[in-house]
Amino acid sequence: MTEVQAIRWDSDRGLLLLLDQRRLPASEEWLEIDNARSAATAIRDLVVRGAPAIGVTAAYAVVLALREHEHSSEWKARVRRDMETLAGARPTAVNLAWALRRMEGVVEGMAVPDTASALAEARAIHDEDVEANRAIGRHGAQLIAEGDAVLTHCNTGSLATGGYGTALGVIRAAHEQGKLRRVFAGETRPWLQGARLTAWELIRDGIPVELVIEGAVAPLFRAGMAQWLIVGADRIVANGDVANKIGTYSAASHARRHGAKVMVAAPSSTVDLSIASGDEIPLEHRDPGEILSLGEYQVAADGAGAWNPVFDITPAELIDAIVTEKGVARPPFTETLEPIA
Amino acid sequence: MTEVQAIRWDSDRGLLLLLDQRRLPASEEWLEIDNARSAATAIRDLVVRGAPAIGVTAAYAVVLALREHEHSSEWKARVRRDMETLAGARPTAVNLAWALRRMEGVVEGMAVPDTASALAEARAIHDEDVEANRAIGRHGAQLIAEGDAVLTHCNTGSLATGGYGTALGVIRAAHEQGKLRRVFAGETRPWLQGARLTAWELIRDGIPVELVIEGAVAPLFRAGMAQWLIVGADRIVANGDVANKIGTYSAASHARRHGAKVMVAAPSSTVDLSIASGDEIPLEHRDPGEILSLGEYQVAADGAGAWNPVFDITPAELIDAIVTEKGVARPPFTETLEPIA
Repeated sequence: MTEVQAIRWDSDRGLLLLLDQRRLPASEEWLEIDNARSAATAIRDLVVRGAPAIGVTAAYAVVLALREHEHSSEWKARVRRDMETLAGARPTAVNLAWALRRMEGVVEGMAVPDTASALAEARAIHDEDVEANRAIGRHGAQLIAEGDAVLTHCNTGSLATGGYGTALGVIRAAHEQGKLRRVFAGETRPWLQGARLTAWELIRDGIPVELVIEGAVAPLFRAGMAQWLIVGADRIVANGDVANKIGTYSAASHARRHGAKVMVAAPSSTVDLSIASGDEIPLEHRDPGEILSLGEYQVAADGAGAWNPVFDITPAELIDAIVTEKGVARPPFTETLEPIA
Repeated sequence: MTEVQAIRWDSDRGLLLLLDQRRLPASEEWLEIDNARSAATAIRDLVVRGAPAIGVTAAYAVVLALREHEHSSEWKARVRRDMETLAGARPTAVNLAWALRRMEGVVEGMAVPDTASALAEARAIHDEDVEANRAIGRHGAQLIAEGDAVLTHCNTGSLATGGYGTALGVIRAAHEQGKLRRVFAGETRPWLQGARLTAWELIRDGIPVELVIEGAVAPLFRAGMAQWLIVGADRIVANGDVANKIGTYSAASHARRHGAKVMVAAPSSTVDLSIASGDEIPLEHRDPGEILSLGEYQVAADGAGAWNPVFDITPAELIDAIVTEKGVARPPFTETLEPIA
């Protein structure tokens, strides 16, 4: 596999290298990050995005903090302050808080600053994420039949994770097994992650990809052109309802209507059994400007508004399989989800 | 009503004025057209779009041809040649051929060039289109209840017709009656007619509008935020299946799933009883570049493809009402469509 590695630790220079996703696919620029505040800014400014990728970035940022402050008598207090800055960069990202708690456990146990131990923990977080994604890929690819065509939505690949990807990991694994006839990617308005990021990743891996606008997903499934919709998840709750990027519910609804199947692929940390159903998940809305303008260019007339939810809820009844690194759950999810959570 | 009139005949100067829709909403530029070849170029280059608008433009263009050639001994042959050029500008537009046939009937009956008679016929074609749209608006608005919110898709307004609009005519009429609580417009990828044109028209008319991406239409209906989907049609066939802009089928499917209603509003000339069902309508596909790039800006990585159908078929089973200037048809359309065709 030659898939992209968007987060790299430069051992020679002791620097964190982040592929600037805001500039893809027009140019491939790497930012050199040498302290935790810069890492927090990069997370906030969407240089790096995707919950698992943010967690891995924050883990390395704690190593940078430790090295910056190791000669200070107040090193632990300063590292803690940097960790707070990191935690506030994207407050809703579950993996960010999780990775920071893990790094905190290591740092708090140190009598003296120990950069090597911190780096080992960050690398472990990174490696475990990639391993989990490869396991997700293996489990998910087993469900795909020889010659199937698949549609994915948004970006759930190397760019969104420590590497390999979740839903895109399933597609990578199925491609490695020579099963896939055709891969479609929804362009994913308003941010166009499908067009900008997923297509870029797949092309780099030598996996042919065709983009579709969200409005064309229904005729795609109606024509029998795809047998699976494979998506990631921001949160999976106890009854199997899934919160994911806006457009997921629409695509899942069309897949079901036309006899295609729906697979949700995500790390087990995404499963939140404390929430009973999707109705309890508040839907985040963003600035109407994201729809009224494209980059610098104003698309819509002055005075127009926009309704701009970021996520939607796909009800469990539309989902055929939920895949984590621990295995595959099939309906009824109220019974099958716990063992893979 | 102060709605836009995108096609104007300048009596003082004997010129056709076309609002350049390619530049909306950033700037409002009018092209002065003084001969039929320029009109054909304007149609081909999408200065004017929408089947009824193209027909009206071609009718005025024949007046320009007649005036240009009236002092030539071969005036009739030259006008015929110009009409052929016009007919070839957008070969698939039904209304273009229809308007030209009507103008031809007038020109062929002339012993000597009679610009006034030709202008009277062009004005009649234009006025009749606006009248038909106002009738569509009246019929359609009757179906809407006090306080309903509606979603439309693409642009079916003054810009796409001689004036007032079809689906947007229904929305205008319902707004005049004070019935509408909220108007949503699908942004309509890949050309963004909803964002660029529909929002512009509605804002100019003082009708508040909120854009939604196609991926957000399902949660919109799920939340009960709209009671009607109101769309135009490129073709309505005998069983009630409707060909319209890509994204229509998806929106209609979500409306039905969540208990909202679907209205198709179009002139009777759109009804084609010679075709039994939507399965017989070939789906036009366009250049993948329309999805891979936004204007000058390349969005997707080199090597990515795209599946880019322009229209889709909404099956009759999802449609609650078809409205033409002659009235309203309800299912079963095989029985009710003929009287309004």
